[in-house]
Amino acid sequence: MSRFTLPGETGMENKIKELISLWGVDAIRDSDGTALSDELLGLGVQIYSTLCLIRMDNEWIKAHPMCRQQIYLMSERFTAFDTYLSIDIMQTVFAEQFEPNIDVDIHKYWQVMDRTTGEEVTTWNYNSSNKTVEISNAIPYHQYDVSFLAYQKWEPVSMYNHITNGWTKEHRIPVDVRHEDAGKHVLEILEDWLKNHPKTDVVRFTTFIYCFDLIYNQFGKEKQVNWFGYAACASPLALEMFEKEYGYSLRPEDLTDNRMYNTPFKNPTKKYLDWMDFNQRFVASFAKKCVDLVHKYNKKAIMFLGDHWAGTEPYGKYFPSIGLDAVVGAAGDGVTTRMIADIPVKETEARFYPYFFPDVFHEGGNPVEESQNVWIKCRRSLLQKPMERMGYGGYLSLACKFPDFIEHVKDVAGQFRMIYDETQGKGCDKTGIKVYVLNTWGKIRTWQTHQVAHSLWNQRCYSYLGAFEALSGLPVDVEFISFDDIRQNGIPEDASVILNAGDAGTAWSGDDNWADERIQALIRKWVRSGGGFLGIGEPTAHRDKGQLFVLQDVLGVQRELGLTASCNKPVHNEKVKQHFITRDLNDSPDYGEGMGMIYQASPSCEILDVSNLSCSMAANEYGSGRAFYMAGCPYDNVNSRILFRALMWLTHKENEWVKWLTDNVNVECNYIDGKAVISNNSANKQKVNIGGSVIELKPYELKLT
Amino acid sequence: MSRFTLPGETGMENKIKELISLWGVDAIRDSDGTALSDELLGLGVQIYSTLCLIRMDNEWIKAHPMCRQQIYLMSERFTAFDTYLSIDIMQTVFAEQFEPNIDVDIHKYWQVMDRTTGEEVTTWNYNSSNKTVEISNAIPYHQYDVSFLAYQKWEPVSMYNHITNGWTKEHRIPVDVRHEDAGKHVLEILEDWLKNHPKTDVVRFTTFIYCFDLIYNQFGKEKQVNWFGYAACASPLALEMFEKEYGYSLRPEDLTDNRMYNTPFKNPTKKYLDWMDFNQRFVASFAKKCVDLVHKYNKKAIMFLGDHWAGTEPYGKYFPSIGLDAVVGAAGDGVTTRMIADIPVKETEARFYPYFFPDVFHEGGNPVEESQNVWIKCRRSLLQKPMERMGYGGYLSLACKFPDFIEHVKDVAGQFRMIYDETQGKGCDKTGIKVYVLNTWGKIRTWQTHQVAHSLWNQRCYSYLGAFEALSGLPVDVEFISFDDIRQNGIPEDASVILNAGDAGTAWSGDDNWADERIQALIRKWVRSGGGFLGIGEPTAHRDKGQLFVLQDVLGVQRELGLTASCNKPVHNEKVKQHFITRDLNDSPDYGEGMGMIYQASPSCEILDVSNLSCSMAANEYGSGRAFYMAGCPYDNVNSRILFRALMWLTHKENEWVKWLTDNVNVECNYIDGKAVISNNSANKQKVNIGGSVIELKPYELKLT
Repeated sequence: MSRFTLPGETGMENKIKELISLWGVDAIRDSDGTALSDELLGLGVQIYSTLCLIRMDNEWIKAHPMCRQQIYLMSERFTAFDTYLSIDIMQTVFAEQFEPNIDVDIHKYWQVMDRTTGEEVTTWNYNSSNKTVEISNAIPYHQYDVSFLAYQKWEPVSMYNHITNGWTKEHRIPVDVRHEDAGKHVLEILEDWLKNHPKTDVVRFTTFIYCFDLIYNQFGKEKQVNWFGYAACASPLALEMFEKEYGYSLRPEDLTDNRMYNTPFKNPTKKYLDWMDFNQRFVASFAKKCVDLVHKYNKKAIMFLGDHWAGTEPYGKYFPSIGLDAVVGAAGDGVTTRMIADIPVKETEARFYPYFFPDVFHEGGNPVEESQNVWIKCRRSLLQKPMERMGYGGYLSLACKFPDFIEHVKDVAGQFRMIYDETQGKGCDKTGIKVYVLNTWGKIRTWQTHQVAHSLWNQRCYSYLGAFEALSGLPVDVEFISFDDIRQNGIPEDASVILNAGDAGTAWSGDDNWADERIQALIRKWVRSGGGFLGIGEPTAHRDKGQLFVLQDVLGVQRELGLTASCNKPVHNEKVKQHFITRDLNDSPDYGEGMGMIYQASPSCEILDVSNLSCSMAANEYGSGRAFYMAGCPYDNVNSRILFRALMWLTHKENEWVKWLTDNVNVECNYIDGKAVISNNSANKQKVNIGGSVIELKPYELKLT
Repeated sequence: MSRFTLPGETGMENKIKELISLWGVDAIRDSDGTALSDELLGLGVQIYSTLCLIRMDNEWIKAHPMCRQQIYLMSERFTAFDTYLSIDIMQTVFAEQFEPNIDVDIHKYWQVMDRTTGEEVTTWNYNSSNKTVEISNAIPYHQYDVSFLAYQKWEPVSMYNHITNGWTKEHRIPVDVRHEDAGKHVLEILEDWLKNHPKTDVVRFTTFIYCFDLIYNQFGKEKQVNWFGYAACASPLALEMFEKEYGYSLRPEDLTDNRMYNTPFKNPTKKYLDWMDFNQRFVASFAKKCVDLVHKYNKKAIMFLGDHWAGTEPYGKYFPSIGLDAVVGAAGDGVTTRMIADIPVKETEARFYPYFFPDVFHEGGNPVEESQNVWIKCRRSLLQKPMERMGYGGYLSLACKFPDFIEHVKDVAGQFRMIYDETQGKGCDKTGIKVYVLNTWGKIRTWQTHQVAHSLWNQRCYSYLGAFEALSGLPVDVEFISFDDIRQNGIPEDASVILNAGDAGTAWSGDDNWADERIQALIRKWVRSGGGFLGIGEPTAHRDKGQLFVLQDVLGVQRELGLTASCNKPVHNEKVKQHFITRDLNDSPDYGEGMGMIYQASPSCEILDVSNLSCSMAANEYGSGRAFYMAGCPYDNVNSRILFRALMWLTHKENEWVKWLTDNVNVECNYIDGKAVISNNSANKQKVNIGGSVIELKPYELKLT
């Protein structure tokens, strides 16, 4: 198996023939806007074809505009300065993307709120000429906003590509296959296509139905992106079907959610969970019809992960019913690589960054360095959980202008295959430590916590996401578990460590789940009996009764928020000098956004580091168990090592796994049936002592001993 | 008038005679533990005698132990590991200070709580031999604590002095004069004392009755200090009288308050406000009896501010009824100086730091520098609001070992008198700007926001307190106003600027006062009509509906707390280059603890500074009004200037008061009827251009032109 999918490009036939042997290419795919020549189709490698059904037939949707996909949007907040207020509902959204739906009873499907009182405004008027909602009985100096249904005039992923690449072609309009006619039409398009493409081996669905919430602003720039959103599944038809099934109706507010659009950062409402489930079942059943058709024509059906999520969440309960043969996704770091790798499907495929696009592949650019920095992160993840296939995206002709990049990809592909083959697809040996990440979402958001979209940097996220990036490449087992899971089934017997990381008030930390006495008691008991608890940022946070961290006794630290300033805090300007967890450290590590005013709250707690007079690392013994606190954990080699040592300490096995701890934090050592695989996770040469021998490593090198 | 009170010391008679002319001493006082010799009493200056009635007669209180003062304390939280739990109620409090009161029905006067559920535990037992509360039906892994009444075996201020100075004399026991016998006895002591001290001109009450909450821990160190607390007014008698008067009973929890002891950092409960009022009325009426007795003997009655507050709050409504002739207090900075100076009483007196104690007056110490750094802050305040008298504390013999200090005090006393005399006690000219500080407490906590006690540094406070320190010495009028005040009477007509500064969830920011739509509308309307709004830290904060700053539209900024991470924020890496407010700045000022993830929320808002990708200063136009936001404002000359400029900009008069803006931020210029008074607020020589002339100033110099 060569395990390599290449983006094909007409005119590059000779180069592609070379790469078949140099890179081990065994599949060629088309992409959005490119077709493969007959010569490429005849090369004898597998042919992947990309399909995005819901934007394929603009003529049909123009003839059936009521079947366009819709979305719930919310205006900005407007302050009334007298009793008349006019709200420009489209003021900050992209008019080329959206158009208010006034074909319905807008007083039923829209919602106008007095945000100051939280009460709905029932008397209002819509002026369609300037797209404003007019209120004539406003209360001066109160704030108002409007939630409204809008048609999606431009399929958002295609729009993104169009704007990014400066295309001039016609905007693609998305169809909502929940309308019976539309669904039937789309399946007919698919069957026709399958009949007419006998050379295609694999049909890669760019998506099945609904895009995640991707809302552009009045300037045509990204305004709101919720990779996991379901606002774009809305339509009067869906809302009616929902009401029929669930016995209650959703209001616009339930989906627009004070402009937060129910991001996964929030604990979901019961209504929103119902809405998700309602759409998941529909999407899975429709996707299954597509997949069945593909199979009928003896082709494989695979899905691209990352553009259209809604209803296809691969860790959700309906995903297996779709019957896909594989999932392919864009891998930009260890977390996104692992997010794809762990999907319960026969095969997974990583499309590595960088794409062969001019942003990187331009004169003076350094695509090799770009790629190396991504690859060393993805490689860490693959060493723990290999994937069946790899590939790239973009224009091959651009990549070919960089001969060193062509050589570099040969090397990457070799490492990729070596990892898979040497570990027989199972990954390297594990320490036996099993980490359960505890948050409100659990399994369905496996490797998807603190993500706005893809692996984009986000100021509110990177200090947490780094811990998951570290985990993705450590020789430990990782599962994601929800508060509901442990409420129902207790803490799994195989758990070594529970990780709770996030800001107070978010679903990642858990918000009011921590007010639940059962949760508190369950975790206290489990830690006291020997478990390990790892808290990052504001773990176990529920602001109440004069404190923030509910499990202050377990963590040994607390955060001062201003109400207990009169209570003297222990002064800890001196760090504990020797601790297993911090043994590789010379200076304070990078805590990212960090925390402030964390103080020692249990006498047993050892302060391992202090930053700006705030405790930034602490270790606490709690009965037979242990807890470790860290103020923030952006990803770098130092923090990854701290986390690894913390996991060892938390499980009382700090002396057992010494063979995994190298004497150089830039170098990790994994084992395949006891045989060392050494990774240089840096751009410099490194030396490391493995089992008594000093080994030299080239920059980024992976060495199998 | 020489306006100078000297701490007398027997044996220093000759030196004191010298100082009478050198420093202008016209009064001598004794202090805790020192008596004045006959020679000193005969020097012809006024004699101040210190009295602390409630700790004067140890024999009587030992014979009447039920009349000892009491306090409500709360144990730590204990976690139950099975159904039996034993709580050591004295584990973290000082056994020499407190003794549990088991003379009462403890099941009525104590309270045991399941902290995990918030429910009271009704079945429990007290084991007096080891001072533990035993619970036999505990829920495993729940947390419990105990609120209990305790006798105060040691008067806390005397205890503080005793421990600090290593005294060996008998511990003084405080008596609760609410007991009729005790009150009668104490007044008899006072009258006897007055009869026997004919040479005393002024009786200085160290306190009247109850100390603020000052709780020491098991190691004899300060544990909890609430300068404004009323927990130490508790007794079964007081609680019974309260119930009779108010028609409901207080529970221990109402006073211990989850170990927060109702600090002023919290919005008070209605019950706690009742309890304060109940005690204020009693203390004021008892204090009036004492003052009347003093007046009967033709002496003056004055009070020391700072040790015992409860019931005597000088900005409270019952203070004038006490009939005091003056108030003296310790002045450690501008805020505490102004706190005393603004008291509505005939005379106020500042006792400046440093005290003549060995902590500063030791070999190698630099008392002049210590004093200068305090003095330049106090002087700023005095220039705005002079005081009638000044003085020092401690041992004169120690001060005399530093001849340069003796000279320095001569200089300070000269400046002090000059400020008073030149301004005829009224202070320098004002700009006409009037700042109202808006918080939950208003007037009663005038110059007392963000204070734990005295002017001690506190990590949760200094970033706010600095703004008040700056204000205390700026040529503006300052008043403190509560949300209730503006609810009832609207915003005062003479207000130029409203200042709201503090952490979210505190009484300083306002907490759920900001949920009140009337408050929101009132302030929006006022600013829009031309008012100025100055927010520091987390102003107008009420976490709800997806946002934190309720008046985001007025402030122009918002804080990201993790739920709206999916919403793209404006990127503002470039500061606005020219703005009136920041014209004196080269670099970012010191924001102290600062804030994180403050972002621009209104297009009209100008970002004046960015720190760690978070907006740290912003200016916004709102209708005819303006708002300024600052992430934190510790006190220094730079921040003081920023605040002054902000006040000018907020009032649209940035060009009117140019004569107050010097070309050197270390130098301030005030005016007395148009005549310049120039202050060098630094330890270095400075040059400044005043009205076209370059003036040179020595370190710390005050120059009257």
